[in-house]
Amino acid sequence: MTVVSLAHGTGGKEMQDLIRELFSSIRTMRREFIGLDAFDDGAVLHGDEGSLVMSTDSYTVKPIFFPGGDIGKLAAYGSINDVAVMGATPIGALDSIIVEEGFPINDLKRIVRSMIDAFESQGVQIISGDFKVMPKGQLDGIVITTTVIGYLNGKPILDSGAKPNDKVIVSGPIGDHGAVITAYQYGIDPEEEGLTSDCASVLPIMRISTEVGEVHAAKDPTRGGLAMALNEIAEKSKVSIWIREEDIPIRNKVRSLMDLLGIDPLYLACEGRVVIIADPNSAEEILRNLRKEGYTDAKIIGEVRSERPGYVVMETVAGGYRIVEKLRGELTPRIC
Amino acid sequence: MTVVSLAHGTGGKEMQDLIRELFSSIRTMRREFIGLDAFDDGAVLHGDEGSLVMSTDSYTVKPIFFPGGDIGKLAAYGSINDVAVMGATPIGALDSIIVEEGFPINDLKRIVRSMIDAFESQGVQIISGDFKVMPKGQLDGIVITTTVIGYLNGKPILDSGAKPNDKVIVSGPIGDHGAVITAYQYGIDPEEEGLTSDCASVLPIMRISTEVGEVHAAKDPTRGGLAMALNEIAEKSKVSIWIREEDIPIRNKVRSLMDLLGIDPLYLACEGRVVIIADPNSAEEILRNLRKEGYTDAKIIGEVRSERPGYVVMETVAGGYRIVEKLRGELTPRIC
Repeated sequence: MTVVSLAHGTGGKEMQDLIRELFSSIRTMRREFIGLDAFDDGAVLHGDEGSLVMSTDSYTVKPIFFPGGDIGKLAAYGSINDVAVMGATPIGALDSIIVEEGFPINDLKRIVRSMIDAFESQGVQIISGDFKVMPKGQLDGIVITTTVIGYLNGKPILDSGAKPNDKVIVSGPIGDHGAVITAYQYGIDPEEEGLTSDCASVLPIMRISTEVGEVHAAKDPTRGGLAMALNEIAEKSKVSIWIREEDIPIRNKVRSLMDLLGIDPLYLACEGRVVIIADPNSAEEILRNLRKEGYTDAKIIGEVRSERPGYVVMETVAGGYRIVEKLRGELTPRIC
Repeated sequence: MTVVSLAHGTGGKEMQDLIRELFSSIRTMRREFIGLDAFDDGAVLHGDEGSLVMSTDSYTVKPIFFPGGDIGKLAAYGSINDVAVMGATPIGALDSIIVEEGFPINDLKRIVRSMIDAFESQGVQIISGDFKVMPKGQLDGIVITTTVIGYLNGKPILDSGAKPNDKVIVSGPIGDHGAVITAYQYGIDPEEEGLTSDCASVLPIMRISTEVGEVHAAKDPTRGGLAMALNEIAEKSKVSIWIREEDIPIRNKVRSLMDLLGIDPLYLACEGRVVIIADPNSAEEILRNLRKEGYTDAKIIGEVRSERPGYVVMETVAGGYRIVEKLRGELTPRIC
């Protein structure tokens, strides 16, 4: 490869390889930071009193307004979620907006309003920001980068924490956000199909889960979907993850559209779900509490094993087994 | 105005007004953060043990490679500088790269290498990041957003700290970066003109200055140049700033090109200079030390007064006085 391809941006195998190559030379210079070489959702800064977690993400979603959200809401919840899944309480956010010359001011106001509301609904204070304009034709609309900082409650939850016998919980139906954006990009109106993005904060899910149970790993399956989230956990934790296809919650409308388009929903982005790897002794308790608190579609979909480390294996509805591989090639660009 | 214009992105008056309108509704939710409503270069997080300073910026500079630097180096030093001018020692950085499909991998490697080198040269550890690809034609090349976090040494240096009788120091010739990028955008080869960007870390300048003297305010004059930096300090500190045109260091090559193009160098971006507002008792000492450490063009260019708060006034070489207004209208887009 001599040029960047869309496959480099999917969150899949090609992107992992490129990022690792680009940043392979980073030296660990400071003891304060942990989890640097782990390529987790965020980074941890250890201070004398407590620790901080930070994460940054750029949001390029197209279209910028979609059923269930917009780029502003997504930019707020997306980075909140990256901090939340590490076991931290987000407190502050920095935003950087780049907008194309000619962009409607009213759309910009609506997007910023939506971002502020989303941050404030989760107790997160916007503390600083930047604003740039690019000449017409040099940027398609708007992109937003957000950085969220949070206080760590106890030890950080890392992708490397899964242990054999742990249970795998998903907090709700997968692929809702991915289905909406994919529909648009195929020229299908998601509203007509009854599709809505799951764009939301996963902070309540993490609070409920860590309050009643022991969470060993957690991840919000965005780009690359459930398949990539599980692969990353399996790889970093040096375990295998075994899931049952029939237990994975997927909305019928999402499943049927993806069947039509020939896309595996396991690779579809979620923007308000978490996959939680929980101690077997507390997984049922976490599930009960999630359901009680309104996450009625939460499910235990599998478990962690020690054999075949690094693999994700799915028992299919037909009764066979198949390896759930990392995402390769391009899927929907500008999904988030 | 119903659409975003290039003038909204210059760092001038129109941008200030738009940002203030967009973010006017932000509520102060958390005591931990100070200086939120000040729109300073960064934000301060007060912890039980010491404080942290954070800043975020998106870099859209065009061209991405230029004499004296590239977008990677600029993205590193730019955010380091925003933290440094608040009196903090930067320790960690998060980066988010958005690149256009078809972008040469070798250019990407060179840019990331340059960013890593710049961060590491200043003792800053890259701790987390994001990477996105936009389809060909939807983004012109590459944009990088960096967020830098640093420990505060003592009290934060804020734009509101200037006091009557303080001296105004600039650390070197102004407008070098702006001249390079402006030349390119006018189709002039900056190398042929002997122009080089001043793209550099201002951390050494801040260290020297705060070690030997009392710095009341400091700013790196990027978009909007020295004129906007001084206007912001004058406005936030509720003082006036009086500068002498003949004392402002500007390279002859920069001045003559800007004369030709009809651009006032006071509004040209610097990327490695600081304007320091220092206590009158230590200004000379700061200047001596800066010069001793290699900043031989550093100069005292004026002083702070109490009358006419909010104004920046320049004594011209002709002997008259003129108000240095905030930047209005568009200047060079994608300057940084």
